[in-house]
Amino acid sequence: MNISSILNILGSLLLLVALAMILPIIVGIYYQEEDTFVFIITMGLTFISGHFLRRFKYNQAGLQYRDGFVVVTLGWLLVSIYGAFPFLLAGIFNNPIDAFFESVSGFTTTGATVIISLESLSHTILFWRSLTHWLGGMGIIVMTMAILPQLAGNMHLFKAEVPGPLHNRIKPRIQETAKTLWLIYIVLTIVEVILLWLNGLPLFDALIHSFGTVSTGGFSSTALSVRAYNSIAVEGIVTLFMLIAGTNFNLIYKAIQGHFRTVINDEEFRLYLTLIILATLLITANLFFQVYNDLLQAIRYATFQVVSIISTTGFATIDYDTWPPFSRWILLVLMFIGGSAGSTAGGIKVIRIQVLLKKGTQELYRLLHPRAVKKIKINRRVVSETVSTSILGFFFLYITVFVTVTITLTYFGIDIISSLSAVASTLGNIGPGLELVGPLNSYLPLPELAKLLLAFCMMMGRLEIYTILVFIFMDWR
Amino acid sequence: MNISSILNILGSLLLLVALAMILPIIVGIYYQEEDTFVFIITMGLTFISGHFLRRFKYNQAGLQYRDGFVVVTLGWLLVSIYGAFPFLLAGIFNNPIDAFFESVSGFTTTGATVIISLESLSHTILFWRSLTHWLGGMGIIVMTMAILPQLAGNMHLFKAEVPGPLHNRIKPRIQETAKTLWLIYIVLTIVEVILLWLNGLPLFDALIHSFGTVSTGGFSSTALSVRAYNSIAVEGIVTLFMLIAGTNFNLIYKAIQGHFRTVINDEEFRLYLTLIILATLLITANLFFQVYNDLLQAIRYATFQVVSIISTTGFATIDYDTWPPFSRWILLVLMFIGGSAGSTAGGIKVIRIQVLLKKGTQELYRLLHPRAVKKIKINRRVVSETVSTSILGFFFLYITVFVTVTITLTYFGIDIISSLSAVASTLGNIGPGLELVGPLNSYLPLPELAKLLLAFCMMMGRLEIYTILVFIFMDWR
Repeated sequence: MNISSILNILGSLLLLVALAMILPIIVGIYYQEEDTFVFIITMGLTFISGHFLRRFKYNQAGLQYRDGFVVVTLGWLLVSIYGAFPFLLAGIFNNPIDAFFESVSGFTTTGATVIISLESLSHTILFWRSLTHWLGGMGIIVMTMAILPQLAGNMHLFKAEVPGPLHNRIKPRIQETAKTLWLIYIVLTIVEVILLWLNGLPLFDALIHSFGTVSTGGFSSTALSVRAYNSIAVEGIVTLFMLIAGTNFNLIYKAIQGHFRTVINDEEFRLYLTLIILATLLITANLFFQVYNDLLQAIRYATFQVVSIISTTGFATIDYDTWPPFSRWILLVLMFIGGSAGSTAGGIKVIRIQVLLKKGTQELYRLLHPRAVKKIKINRRVVSETVSTSILGFFFLYITVFVTVTITLTYFGIDIISSLSAVASTLGNIGPGLELVGPLNSYLPLPELAKLLLAFCMMMGRLEIYTILVFIFMDWR
Repeated sequence: MNISSILNILGSLLLLVALAMILPIIVGIYYQEEDTFVFIITMGLTFISGHFLRRFKYNQAGLQYRDGFVVVTLGWLLVSIYGAFPFLLAGIFNNPIDAFFESVSGFTTTGATVIISLESLSHTILFWRSLTHWLGGMGIIVMTMAILPQLAGNMHLFKAEVPGPLHNRIKPRIQETAKTLWLIYIVLTIVEVILLWLNGLPLFDALIHSFGTVSTGGFSSTALSVRAYNSIAVEGIVTLFMLIAGTNFNLIYKAIQGHFRTVINDEEFRLYLTLIILATLLITANLFFQVYNDLLQAIRYATFQVVSIISTTGFATIDYDTWPPFSRWILLVLMFIGGSAGSTAGGIKVIRIQVLLKKGTQELYRLLHPRAVKKIKINRRVVSETVSTSILGFFFLYITVFVTVTITLTYFGIDIISSLSAVASTLGNIGPGLELVGPLNSYLPLPELAKLLLAFCMMMGRLEIYTILVFIFMDWR
């Protein structure tokens, strides 16, 4: 292990975070809020820590394959710890665990909150809270597009999709890919801000909700979330941008370049849309017949909630936890599926589900035609046995982690639905779950250990599980 | 498709069922009950149907590979239909769907019931109900030991374990293997009957509960199930025999032959025991601290319920649905795991879980050591990539069926916990679930379509899912 280089990289990361803290300081000065000082202090602290770590020598040649896992895991952890300071210093929480939970939830773009009264927060703190989403989204883009494909067999599939970097030539290609995708990310954010602003939202609110949307995070500035504006236009815009944010960014890039046929023919995108339409239709029918008696209202609520959950954003325009079991179960299943690979969304990811479905069909076909050879293809490209097998393995790991963490949550006496939905929601980086952790509730009342465990789930989900598992089980020599 | 031969085999099967109906007739005569006539009529009907089907010509050479799926699926279905007649004719149900549900539940050794007042049934009907378990268990032995290994890639693993028949030489070897295993099955039943009888149970009750135990079925003759006898000895005997019934029958054979070291070193058996001990310890602790305040009572209830559920029997000595979430969730997880392969237990099966765990570890190892080759071994034998991959595929199919059926159950407005536990319990051939379908309740109040769907789940689970899926998706030329 090349500890020196790892510390150096982590130092750079902290310097970037320190740099980002200029933004809440600007917001604080604009609103003339005391919390400005909180960020000046945190920024200084982060800068000094980053600078200190940067003094360790960086030696690219000495960086080993496995060091990547360490960098990614520790990087996310460290940034979340420093990101938690403002919440503590501003006195939002007395408990460091709560502050850490909120920060991890932000940087992993989960959006699960332990804050009950959002209205009592300063603009500065609200802005930082949502900025962690947005920065986290940027981090995900670099990580899933550039770093993970280097590391993980599981990501080979995505590697084939992305004009990704080759081993030992990481740096220049990372920068190139990341720059293009970051540009898309920033443009998406600006366009949404303008659209929301034009539709009557104050600029501050427009920023907050755009940060929460494009990063598929879901932090809002009001307890009522997007519902507070009671505007179909606003809901429509947010829905559209959640849908886009859950789409592979390479595909968005192709759409911008005018290759619409590529986008429309993309199998993952098609399945993503199919799942959204199917779930919306089913829930609409259920709501129309059993709850609202108003078709338009049923469609409106169903569409928003379905897109919000499958894209793993977690905004809500209604307390979907009061819906009938059918609708709630479908939402719960969508929490596992998640958005597209190469987006800021979490969950198992649509393309993995697609490979799993094709693999399942293939196994059945094999039983009937033992001698026939039928390869799995996605977008006319053959998916190798190694890749499809490792995706099956990923599915098993995902379910195993889900089951195991749920066991420990129920140990605290939390009922089964709350426990399993809390785990599904944090592991899939959505935010709200059902019952105790439903869209109108917060994670605050949970025991400290449960909160730590769920924060761990957010990290697990965000880092595609195996990154963390490898980190844990690594041969630490 | 060799329709003529298939019908002929199904005819033989019906003749065997007709033959078995002599037993309830003897019971009916002994107790001088009217329901004797019900069985005389049903026996005649079954005999005539069987005889009619036997007139189709059997041509072994013409039997194709795929015909096996048809025989197994239709066989189980047909037997369940004829087995339902006595319930209808005796007037237990007005609704044929309920009668069919009870019969399928019997023959698949599930033990889910739609009868509320067991005490009002005649001895004859009670005997038949439990006999379906016992006959179903015999069917499972033939099927999993002799027929399925011929058909299914998924079972290759078991094939290697079993001194199984070779292709095209099915018949003699089936008979040989089946005879030995049936003998074990019968001896186990007799020994349990004697032990229960010696411990104070009436012979009739001893028979009923032995049928329910060795087949891992779970039908009882009283609403209180095994608890009715309030005897630690009885509970101990039933626990022991449930544990044995959930063990690979080849292993039991080896134990009888005196090869204890083989038994103790068997990896699946070890994991099976480990899971039982672990779950019992966890639940005992949970019950001791939160419910009973009496360690012995906690151990007693925990042990029985854990063994009952993991062996997929489904007897209960307590309403475990009133336990804290932690214990209930562990039981729910055990429903998915199930007993050992080559036993009458259902569920995913311990050996598959074992391969999945090893495969998961292997994938992680591969990420850390991309060039290293590490093969999965079970009992010192290499598990091929094909087999481990198809087990991963099986796991995905199992979860997919579970999720999908649960969606349709919630559609009827049944709450999530009841729905998912009903599906987990029927798919795993256990019997009771949680909430609405908890151990003190019956499946009677569920809508007709839900009951049909759950009966379908029992068949799916019993026939290792892919048999049914292949049957459905078969190219029916």
